[in-house]
Amino acid sequence: MSALPGVKALVFDTFGTVVDWRRGIARDARTFLAKHGRGDVDPLAFADAWRRRYQPAMEAVRSGARPFTRLDVLHRENLDALLAEHGIAAEEAERDWLNRAWHRLDPWPDSIPGLLRLRAKHFIAPLSNGNILLLANMAKRAGIPWDAILGAEPVQAYKPQREAYTRTAEILGLAPHEVALVAAHNGDLAAARKAGLATAFVLRGHEHGPDQATDLRADADWDAIAGSFEELADTLGC
Amino acid sequence: MSALPGVKALVFDTFGTVVDWRRGIARDARTFLAKHGRGDVDPLAFADAWRRRYQPAMEAVRSGARPFTRLDVLHRENLDALLAEHGIAAEEAERDWLNRAWHRLDPWPDSIPGLLRLRAKHFIAPLSNGNILLLANMAKRAGIPWDAILGAEPVQAYKPQREAYTRTAEILGLAPHEVALVAAHNGDLAAARKAGLATAFVLRGHEHGPDQATDLRADADWDAIAGSFEELADTLGC
Repeated sequence: MSALPGVKALVFDTFGTVVDWRRGIARDARTFLAKHGRGDVDPLAFADAWRRRYQPAMEAVRSGARPFTRLDVLHRENLDALLAEHGIAAEEAERDWLNRAWHRLDPWPDSIPGLLRLRAKHFIAPLSNGNILLLANMAKRAGIPWDAILGAEPVQAYKPQREAYTRTAEILGLAPHEVALVAAHNGDLAAARKAGLATAFVLRGHEHGPDQATDLRADADWDAIAGSFEELADTLGC
Repeated sequence: MSALPGVKALVFDTFGTVVDWRRGIARDARTFLAKHGRGDVDPLAFADAWRRRYQPAMEAVRSGARPFTRLDVLHRENLDALLAEHGIAAEEAERDWLNRAWHRLDPWPDSIPGLLRLRAKHFIAPLSNGNILLLANMAKRAGIPWDAILGAEPVQAYKPQREAYTRTAEILGLAPHEVALVAAHNGDLAAARKAGLATAFVLRGHEHGPDQATDLRADADWDAIAGSFEELADTLGC
């Protein structure tokens, strides 16, 4: 028996769960920093600093302080601020190239093999705070076999806002309990469960590097718990 | 040189341009009608009658008389009216099955071979009045290799409203002239051109059956004109 009975669609957190954002951003930041004579800046620390501005930027949208704004725009504002902080001047085309490093992230090694198996029995889509173009370019480059590109942009709401989950189920023509969120983050799963979705935790112990201190275990009795996407496919009988 | 210089994304009308809606709907209508003892109703005429209610239903949304409503809902309302007209009683599950015939349409024979070639050099997506689930289920069943599922639902506007084209370009992070609409319908292309998009006409001379009287030729100097998706790929050097 499947661990997720009655679930027809699996939606996936993406940054950290499907792809390794930290090393992907650091890879392109390294190239960028070297070009600007700033080999002294640690690219991994640069990636972490950029990412630290992620939640506050979305919070301005969630709180209603600003209208819905797609993530490419928030990432770019955050990048401009970070470059100013480091005193780095760069032209528009270079900033845009680095900003699109978020479109060029690599999946964890088990992500695509697992998704190919899960896709045979379920509708699969990202439920990410990334915008459609970001997620679609990422999928095209890396070969991620999504059935559709969902996420914050079509529902005009950022996780963990309830609407991000419930409106995604509406797009899929399903009741919330027929949709499962797959995520490496306990907080995301808690919000999904509160909105009525089924939940699957996949451990990503190195999202934040070798010294990761968060999300090293399932903090609740999620409906499925796995160590990889392939293990999740095993659990679901795919 | 390509017929569409500077174009980075191709977006496609879907019903009639990518898939053969009329014979697909008739196929499932035949099964449905036989089951209800109504072999006297011509399935192709049934398909045509269902489709005739398509534009008026969307017009209610375009005019602002009702809020944006996804096409699965409009199709279902139109189906219920059509069944009432024929005095056919059917249960919810049967109606839903027939309504989802729009998710099970087959591509024209050249559609997928052409798209696979076009996809190598362009970002490709549907720009259809179909909703996300309809287009995604269609793509999953038939193997249509879209890079993303776009269309009326993410932009909350029905073609030929200007916003359907311009907001799609915004999602793609492109200026309108960097996006080309591929369509078998001169009216759709005229609206796309007015919104600033590039245009490609593909002839589909049997969308409405052997006696088709409309869209048998390009009515204007569209940027590209082709007899099939494979010919369009030739024209674009893909």
